[in-house]
Amino acid sequence: MNLREIGVVRSVHDHLARTPRQPGAAASEREALVVLHPIAGITDALRDLAAMERIWLITWFDRVRGWKPMVLPPRGPRVKRGVFATRSPHRPNPIGLSLVRLLEVRGRTLRVADVDLLDGTPVLDLKPYHPTVEAWPDARAGWIDELVRAERDGSAFPNTVTWSERAAAQRDWLWTEHAVDLFPLEDVLRRDATPHPYRRIEALPGGELQIAWRAWRLRLRVEGTAVEIVAVGSGYAPGVIAATPEGALVDDAAQRAFAERW
Amino acid sequence: MNLREIGVVRSVHDHLARTPRQPGAAASEREALVVLHPIAGITDALRDLAAMERIWLITWFDRVRGWKPMVLPPRGPRVKRGVFATRSPHRPNPIGLSLVRLLEVRGRTLRVADVDLLDGTPVLDLKPYHPTVEAWPDARAGWIDELVRAERDGSAFPNTVTWSERAAAQRDWLWTEHAVDLFPLEDVLRRDATPHPYRRIEALPGGELQIAWRAWRLRLRVEGTAVEIVAVGSGYAPGVIAATPEGALVDDAAQRAFAERW
Repeated sequence: MNLREIGVVRSVHDHLARTPRQPGAAASEREALVVLHPIAGITDALRDLAAMERIWLITWFDRVRGWKPMVLPPRGPRVKRGVFATRSPHRPNPIGLSLVRLLEVRGRTLRVADVDLLDGTPVLDLKPYHPTVEAWPDARAGWIDELVRAERDGSAFPNTVTWSERAAAQRDWLWTEHAVDLFPLEDVLRRDATPHPYRRIEALPGGELQIAWRAWRLRLRVEGTAVEIVAVGSGYAPGVIAATPEGALVDDAAQRAFAERW
Repeated sequence: MNLREIGVVRSVHDHLARTPRQPGAAASEREALVVLHPIAGITDALRDLAAMERIWLITWFDRVRGWKPMVLPPRGPRVKRGVFATRSPHRPNPIGLSLVRLLEVRGRTLRVADVDLLDGTPVLDLKPYHPTVEAWPDARAGWIDELVRAERDGSAFPNTVTWSERAAAQRDWLWTEHAVDLFPLEDVLRRDATPHPYRRIEALPGGELQIAWRAWRLRLRVEGTAVEIVAVGSGYAPGVIAATPEGALVDDAAQRAFAERW
């Protein structure tokens, strides 16, 4: 059973370090292109698709190595789940299934919304969404139902998050000067600020915690449900920035300016 | 990108000749087992799945060769559609996506309902059905919407179908003596009784038509929207039945008895 890539996803998500789920994400961040390869017959194969409001995108999680029988979902309580009961990419066959809104078909390029696939993800198949047989709003879904309920009633977000004066200044400077957006991390910490591999939260010597996101680090003080973000730092060790050729760092310009400014 | 089979479907559908869609199909015909292979970790991977009412079954259409940019859907008007706007197996990657009801998980065997997959179909992945993000009852679906509307208002079934006395006697004899069920073909003919490759209807010399189903043939007389099933016959040429070793025919016992009786 051999697959062939019939196209790729072109999105703004260009790194594996997962963008935290972001309730206020700009619509543009959830838009992407599906560019099919110029395979003979491909435009015929796309006929009648433009009339579909939603389509299934079947993809290959090409940047994931190895499967895990049980995984820790990024959202929800810190409980491992059987991988088949999750959408984790760590499956025996790393096949992705995404329901996306189809905005436009132009030649062999599709503009789609509601996508959080990485840029370059191989596309294997497209299928129409069939509302009559695929829409079951009341289907029981075990731990997913519990999670959705907890998010709706707020119990999934027990923590209050505050920023120290310094951390707030750093956050605002990164955002206004370099469009580096640390606000979504608040949402992650409102859920849970205890050490957690997928959320990249770890304990530091001395009792503080740290959350990592891309090449940035936030130092945290946690007391019960009160989380204070004490300071923002770089993920690069001192000296690395100066020793690295220009342009080779993640958020290169921001990193260099940050090192000088803070 | 290499796939591995993680299990197989065990169903009563053991032949490619498509069982016509059957509104009155016995529930047992739509039940199947998904038997996963004894891969290390597989029972852990199945944890939490039993709490899901519906699951996605991702399969490989292993008995389909080659893709076709445009296909003639088995239901609906005789119009070819772009393969990506259909669920046809003739896709660049012959990946199947079936939403099934999960009835029971026992060890590495799943009992599921609402399945029309062939026996032996390789299983690639299982995923939970996520009602909050996957249920869109009002999603537009182009030609599929038109088809569903036409089935609901009856316009998809313009023909009246009658059986000649002889054909009715043959049909009843095959059903009561050998459990060969020809009734579903009525439904196919109520839709459309003109020559159609997927429905296996062809014109015979002399003006009659014939519909084939497995190793059976029904001779038809069609006038406008009136379809008369004139007679039932075998798909085996005379002499072939006697010359074939016992047990090697499709519906073997029924074929041999039918040849003697009719």
